[in-house]
Amino acid sequence: MSDPVEIIKDEVRTLRPYSLVSQRARVKLNQNENPWDVSKEIKEETFRRLQGHVWSRYPGLQTLELNERLARFSGWKPEGIIAGNGSNELIQAVLMVTAGSGRRVLISEPTFTLYRQVSTVLGSEVVSVSFTPQLTYDADTLRKSIAATQPSVTIICSPNNPTGCVISRSDLIGLLEATNGLVVVDEAYFEFSGQSVVPLLEKYSNLIVLRTFSKAMAMAALRIGYLLAAPELVAEIAKAVLPYNLNIVSQTASEAAMEMYDAKLSGLVEMICSERDRLHAELERIPNLTAVPSQANFILIRSQLPLKQVFDELLRREILVRDVSSYPMLQEYFRISVGTPKENDALLEALWQISKELG
Amino acid sequence: MSDPVEIIKDEVRTLRPYSLVSQRARVKLNQNENPWDVSKEIKEETFRRLQGHVWSRYPGLQTLELNERLARFSGWKPEGIIAGNGSNELIQAVLMVTAGSGRRVLISEPTFTLYRQVSTVLGSEVVSVSFTPQLTYDADTLRKSIAATQPSVTIICSPNNPTGCVISRSDLIGLLEATNGLVVVDEAYFEFSGQSVVPLLEKYSNLIVLRTFSKAMAMAALRIGYLLAAPELVAEIAKAVLPYNLNIVSQTASEAAMEMYDAKLSGLVEMICSERDRLHAELERIPNLTAVPSQANFILIRSQLPLKQVFDELLRREILVRDVSSYPMLQEYFRISVGTPKENDALLEALWQISKELG
Repeated sequence: MSDPVEIIKDEVRTLRPYSLVSQRARVKLNQNENPWDVSKEIKEETFRRLQGHVWSRYPGLQTLELNERLARFSGWKPEGIIAGNGSNELIQAVLMVTAGSGRRVLISEPTFTLYRQVSTVLGSEVVSVSFTPQLTYDADTLRKSIAATQPSVTIICSPNNPTGCVISRSDLIGLLEATNGLVVVDEAYFEFSGQSVVPLLEKYSNLIVLRTFSKAMAMAALRIGYLLAAPELVAEIAKAVLPYNLNIVSQTASEAAMEMYDAKLSGLVEMICSERDRLHAELERIPNLTAVPSQANFILIRSQLPLKQVFDELLRREILVRDVSSYPMLQEYFRISVGTPKENDALLEALWQISKELG
Repeated sequence: MSDPVEIIKDEVRTLRPYSLVSQRARVKLNQNENPWDVSKEIKEETFRRLQGHVWSRYPGLQTLELNERLARFSGWKPEGIIAGNGSNELIQAVLMVTAGSGRRVLISEPTFTLYRQVSTVLGSEVVSVSFTPQLTYDADTLRKSIAATQPSVTIICSPNNPTGCVISRSDLIGLLEATNGLVVVDEAYFEFSGQSVVPLLEKYSNLIVLRTFSKAMAMAALRIGYLLAAPELVAEIAKAVLPYNLNIVSQTASEAAMEMYDAKLSGLVEMICSERDRLHAELERIPNLTAVPSQANFILIRSQLPLKQVFDELLRREILVRDVSSYPMLQEYFRISVGTPKENDALLEALWQISKELG
């Protein structure tokens, strides 16, 4: 028996693990979460429906009822839907059936780090196109890269984490028509942008849309995501989704949340969007900081002040933000989630003080 | 744009999806579930701890508290543990970091079909060694196959689903010492066998043990599993485990179940084992049927009667069992889960009648 770690694939051993040091703070603006919890009514309805539900029996394989509910909610067909334990699981499933040794995955960076991580674990070559200097999608270069590298999958996060930009409809169509591969659009933050690419699913059978209940739907703790695509594609991707992947509590909670979205959640999304716009305007007034326009529930901020000191000063005031300085192009940036008005006021006040002290 | 399904890997497109037709029946003996639900006390304690827990915030990355609780429960070290959304997710993670094109996974069939499914999706070659004619592990042939094919991973299900046999300690040690790869022992059913290979973890750093809360722990609906291995191996496998994979409800429920195991669950395991032994003895008396000795919570039964008719007759009596006739070696077999005494009586009575009618 040799050292068992040697049997691990090289591409995994050289990979840095996904990590986030967990820190406690009064104002938590580091994970793009919804600052408001799910309403009492949605929680109570979830527990009411779970009353008497047997825990010892398996949940259904992809359940028809949930898929039909997701279909009505998203405007797509139930047979073109897979529900998952968070959308991460569904990104992984797409990559498991398409990526691997000798295949390429095209991404645009800086973006959500998991795309590169999972593609790499699966042995794919990751091809990366930089954002423009304005931190928007560079559609021309992406199209050229598609022609040159023939990726099996192109992943677009829109609105993109952590830049906040969306891809335009015409740019996306350009990519869908240029590639012989699949195009995944991760719409984790779409509710905050007021736009979706779901209407393109009917025409483009190589388009895959991912959604999550972790942001606008305020259910990050319950891990629910879903995937929308052509039914014939869904049938193949489903082969990489583990049976019984969604537990009954999350399933039930997601149904209750969809039913009460208009009454209990859409108002929160509106408040977050209006707070985001207020925050952006206010941040622009603070010396030494520049806010990047965002269509999501977070804002990327460029700092002329030393980042380490900014974080320390914020933490001293019990405010936690996200260090994204290790991302490509973002050496001088940090990211904040849009919080409640009170949390945002605390952030603004702290940043004014810090800008004066350090500037 | 060509047909998007063509971009799916060949090994996936030719794969039959994992499926189980869902049928309703009064007596459900087809999924090796615990016939008794989790106790009211465990459910109430779970909901009590979840009171006031915020749903909109992410759960921790692998949480220290849960891992410490799992460590005490299993007799292994917290830094050598990964908790997952069912043990299936952890099998998949192990295979993601070790399997792939040009690599081999060794299994012994008939066994749980997911091992072959996931290995195949990942592009590995699956090497399969048959069980002995007595449906027990053929350790000699497994060792020879290890020498000949140098598998990256050998997967042993013990007790094995659907045969019910365990691998002996000395046979397992033989495999651990013969291979340069990893050996996964899936202990989904270990509680019903009264034995575990966890004590071997200290000496064999290429051993990985998988456990689940879906069987003895009566929580199939909540999807909880865990993996035990050497910490340096766990650090690599963790790179293929998605961040925030375990939702807070399942996490909380698993903690409550471990705390109340002695008071509320171990008695159910004893009842299931004694019912299994009673069932086996009674089945042996029924003409045209032969029961395979089992150390799990299910029994494999060989039928001299036409299987299709047996299933139809059982279903007519509202009894659902598992058709395993498509598994290698099991053309004449079906599998029953051990139910409550009343359910087992109903099964026995039905099988007596069917044996008389069809025999």
